Amino acid sequence: MRRYRGRVRVMPRAGLLDPQGHAVEQALGALGFTGVGRVRVGRTLEIALEADSEQEVRERLREMCERLVANPVTEDFTIDAVEAGP
Amino acid sequence: MRRYRGRVRVMPRAGLLDPQGHAVEQALGALGFTGVGRVRVGRTLEIALEADSEQEVRERLREMCERLVANPVTEDFTIDAVEAGP
Repeated sequence: MRRYRGRVRVMPRAGLLDPQGHAVEQALGALGFTGVGRVRVGRTLEIALEADSEQEVRERLREMCERLVANPVTEDFTIDAVEAGP
Repeated sequence: MRRYRGRVRVMPRAGLLDPQGHAVEQALGALGFTGVGRVRVGRTLEIALEADSEQEVRERLREMCERLVANPVTEDFTIDAVEAGP
């Protein structure tokens, strides 16, 4: 068993309402930022876990996203990084 | 002016309490996932904007994070990607 750190990103699915993103868009405009288009707000999780291989880490991260971390109806997830280390 | 899309990641600063991360940690254990260590939960924002260069995009994203998107006391931000495109 080795220690790994994985990073997963969960974003609202394209085409669905994203009220948080809309709020940030409005706030950026109010602060004077120009030329700002669509803003989308999602979550990123860093998860430390023990496993035998990077492949096992990716499989378990995917299962965590499917079962808990991401809403399968409204969100898409991406595994952005897997690194060995504490 | 060209269109770009930037992606910024905002994470709780190391050493600070992260109640959301703690809740996910507990929930993963309750679901039967073993070997899970520290979990940290942050935000990722995708921001579309018009600018003259990738460098300008990065400067403006940094300013957005400093002024609005990230809490300078409790969070760190990283510009993960800048791509040309709609």
